[in-house]
Amino acid sequence: MQPVNLAEKLARIADYWCPKVVGQVNDFHVKLVKLKGGFVWHAHEIEDELFLVLRGTLRMQFRDRETTIREGEFLVVPHGTEHRPVAEEEVHVLLLEPASTVNTGTARGERTRDIEWL
Amino acid sequence: MQPVNLAEKLARIADYWCPKVVGQVNDFHVKLVKLKGGFVWHAHEIEDELFLVLRGTLRMQFRDRETTIREGEFLVVPHGTEHRPVAEEEVHVLLLEPASTVNTGTARGERTRDIEWL
Repeated sequence: MQPVNLAEKLARIADYWCPKVVGQVNDFHVKLVKLKGGFVWHAHEIEDELFLVLRGTLRMQFRDRETTIREGEFLVVPHGTEHRPVAEEEVHVLLLEPASTVNTGTARGERTRDIEWL
Repeated sequence: MQPVNLAEKLARIADYWCPKVVGQVNDFHVKLVKLKGGFVWHAHEIEDELFLVLRGTLRMQFRDRETTIREGEFLVVPHGTEHRPVAEEEVHVLLLEPASTVNTGTARGERTRDIEWL
């Protein structure tokens, strides 16, 4: 039961789009991830997903619109909602989601990553 | 489904030790709270509780030790663990916990607050 320093953990993340688990709260995971470029369209069948932007500006595309999440803001994407994160510049994000969440949701493919602790 | 700005929400919180819900992720709540002074000793029977310090320095006392959570750090207090948050100066905290969590845990009393959205 030690405090987790977000900046220290982020400094150890080299690859984009590879979320790392840094904490667990009951059956929820806290993850950190660095994003740059565009991701794949995907949805999570049962898991809502919270994106808290720690650095930079994240665009979140939906099929019918788009929203912008700035530093110090979070957005909750409800389960079943197709979304596509886009980062023009590097963005640092804290994710909060059920531990069962897969990064690419039901759209598994080459960008799917195992759930790994950092 | 709009981004939530943490600073804007915090600016609307006047009272200390009154967590306000600002987001929901499945059956979890994201809350914001301002702390100053010491709280009551309490534990949560089944809910783990994450404290992410957004501003200031939070001391977390346990029965046998104490830890310090600085700005940009989080600590997860496991369910069943007696704890007492202490804020020498004003501290701003983002809480992440199951929606069933009561602020005073099983130690209900005059400092117990209803779960309210902001």
